[in-house]
Amino acid sequence: MSEPAMAPVGAAGVVALVRQCGAPLPAVRVPLAEALGGILREPVCATEDQPAFDRSAMDGYAILRDDPSASFRLVDEIRAGEWKPRTLRLGETVRVATGAALPGTGLQVVMREQARVEAAQVWLAERGEETNIRPQGQDAARGEVLVPSGTVLRPGTLALLASLGHAHPLVTRPLRVLHVATGNELVAPDQKPGPGQIRDSNSTLVRAFFQVRGLALSQCRLPEDEGVAQETLRGASESVDLLLISGGASVGEHDFTRRLLEYLGYGIRLQKTNTRPGKPLVFGTRGPALAFGLPGNPLAHFVCLHLYVRAALEALRGGAETPLFQTGRLAIELVSDGHDRETFWPAVCQRSAGPAELIPLRWASSGDLTPLATATALLRVTGGTTRLERGESIEFVDTECG
Amino acid sequence: MSEPAMAPVGAAGVVALVRQCGAPLPAVRVPLAEALGGILREPVCATEDQPAFDRSAMDGYAILRDDPSASFRLVDEIRAGEWKPRTLRLGETVRVATGAALPGTGLQVVMREQARVEAAQVWLAERGEETNIRPQGQDAARGEVLVPSGTVLRPGTLALLASLGHAHPLVTRPLRVLHVATGNELVAPDQKPGPGQIRDSNSTLVRAFFQVRGLALSQCRLPEDEGVAQETLRGASESVDLLLISGGASVGEHDFTRRLLEYLGYGIRLQKTNTRPGKPLVFGTRGPALAFGLPGNPLAHFVCLHLYVRAALEALRGGAETPLFQTGRLAIELVSDGHDRETFWPAVCQRSAGPAELIPLRWASSGDLTPLATATALLRVTGGTTRLERGESIEFVDTECG
Repeated sequence: MSEPAMAPVGAAGVVALVRQCGAPLPAVRVPLAEALGGILREPVCATEDQPAFDRSAMDGYAILRDDPSASFRLVDEIRAGEWKPRTLRLGETVRVATGAALPGTGLQVVMREQARVEAAQVWLAERGEETNIRPQGQDAARGEVLVPSGTVLRPGTLALLASLGHAHPLVTRPLRVLHVATGNELVAPDQKPGPGQIRDSNSTLVRAFFQVRGLALSQCRLPEDEGVAQETLRGASESVDLLLISGGASVGEHDFTRRLLEYLGYGIRLQKTNTRPGKPLVFGTRGPALAFGLPGNPLAHFVCLHLYVRAALEALRGGAETPLFQTGRLAIELVSDGHDRETFWPAVCQRSAGPAELIPLRWASSGDLTPLATATALLRVTGGTTRLERGESIEFVDTECG
Repeated sequence: MSEPAMAPVGAAGVVALVRQCGAPLPAVRVPLAEALGGILREPVCATEDQPAFDRSAMDGYAILRDDPSASFRLVDEIRAGEWKPRTLRLGETVRVATGAALPGTGLQVVMREQARVEAAQVWLAERGEETNIRPQGQDAARGEVLVPSGTVLRPGTLALLASLGHAHPLVTRPLRVLHVATGNELVAPDQKPGPGQIRDSNSTLVRAFFQVRGLALSQCRLPEDEGVAQETLRGASESVDLLLISGGASVGEHDFTRRLLEYLGYGIRLQKTNTRPGKPLVFGTRGPALAFGLPGNPLAHFVCLHLYVRAALEALRGGAETPLFQTGRLAIELVSDGHDRETFWPAVCQRSAGPAELIPLRWASSGDLTPLATATALLRVTGGTTRLERGESIEFVDTECG
């Protein structure tokens, strides 16, 4: 087994490698109800003028724009959804509802509150400058690109597509993700661990990480047994775009992720990082498919998911690359141990005015899960740091909205 | 029909009213797989020390902490998940894997990379100060509160609960939400509107708004016909916690949301705001249930969802109140029309270093959907504003992560 030649790299280097190895998956058309969070892979244009016809902006009375009359004869009524073109004459008015199609051009709408009505006669008090009409094409002209390719389909974007009648947008097809938790020490969260055993928390973490992003995944738990793992994963990993294996990524003799990925046909591109936690990270590729061997401890999982797996998702989905780090300010001092590796430190990010405020959380060891209770950010503490003062500028990953 | 006496209020006033009217729903236990995004309604303590036993932090060789020997006899091997207590003597070593339970106390682990092994004999080169052991209770002691009541169950929080064996957390029960789109002018997004008609985009917007928050809802589309609406909603609205009715909220004769809510037994608490868009907003309560009549235009929907419905969700779920507005800085100047009402203006929010940068989007009218293509924030432009300069401080609602 040949060792990949690569020297250990920092987080930015790993992300660059992942981005370089990942390419957008094919695009498919999906209904709007399944498109949330997808990446649009085509520009979407206005198929009609927006609005498509002159609409009343309020409930009121349509009259000719320069009609000096004091009282008007009510000749018709138009509700939203109705289409009743007619030529208005001086002294005539049509009652219109908000959103209703105006009966013609050259009109203005006087607010209902300004009108006094008696039988079929309408007296209009004040008449302002405003027409209170949303003219055809005011928002966008037919053919104009309204949603560029690469846009994330947020709720507002989907609403716009719905209004355009673009009911089946072209998006990157759903990712096929398989997550495998390995480790003989693992029991399910609802089981009592025997002596020396722990509960599997990584499966819960990985599932929720994907669920937040609107992505489904398959999951299984395997003993650290090469034969069993090979047998189980040979078929199951065949068609996946992203394979994640938890545990078994360090250099020990019982760690087998790397060998397993090689057996499954992945070329190993990286087997170590220069970061803490998350040093023994395995990254491999098989054609367009990507795979990670994630070191077993949960905080390392948290870090690797938000740095590297997130980068892989972005690469496979084909959206804009979001910046890896933001810069904020420490809300309290941070005392570290001067470790020579770049460290990712759980923190709470608070935003109100000015730069984001970061509160580092108490953190005993890289196996410590307790800061995950409330962490919403990971601070990037450069190697050799022993102390950072309150108010100092610090880079961080937003794990809440990143 | 009596008019509610309340004067029109600004956004902050509406939110305060909504918060005052909403109370947390009952709590239920759910499996971890269904708990994402829920609000924890109990404190969760460590049921065991964390970690529950002394664990090796790396692959290596366990020896007595003060053992001066140069070479050691390999007497056993402990993998993660195994439990092999034994008393080590001077000159003895046990091979341990990362995460394995140490065989006893008073030990240190020497990294595998520092060892030379021949048959059952191990030579250990450098021995640092570090024990490379995560001692029992290092992260948390049994009984310590690790997750306070009121915490949002994020992926990391769920992972911690899994590791504690807290597999059925107590959370606010799922909200029952019903959304009704009314309007005779509406056709489905995949249909071609006739003259005077438009496609229903609000149903898509509302569904996606809830989907982002991990919440399901029921939806229907109704004509603006009081008899039909009363018939349809009498039973359907019976058990909902939150009822949203789109359209028909302005003062026109064909607007019927308010009458419909009164028919369904809601007391009207508000029927007008002092904001743009979103002026004709109806808000009502029926016991613990809340209802909104949202003005039909999609941008008004976007604003009302992110300001008021979001406040209702927070109140019904019982988490911490998030601040309504953040403060950022305009990335370009903003030119407005001096309208006397507080205006919410679609924008893109960019964060890197320093305060959030807000880019106002082109926006023709309050019925204009086109800025929803990319909007991630709503700027709060106070009444009477005609111009704000680049770099000026501005309040905003984060619609992406809020």
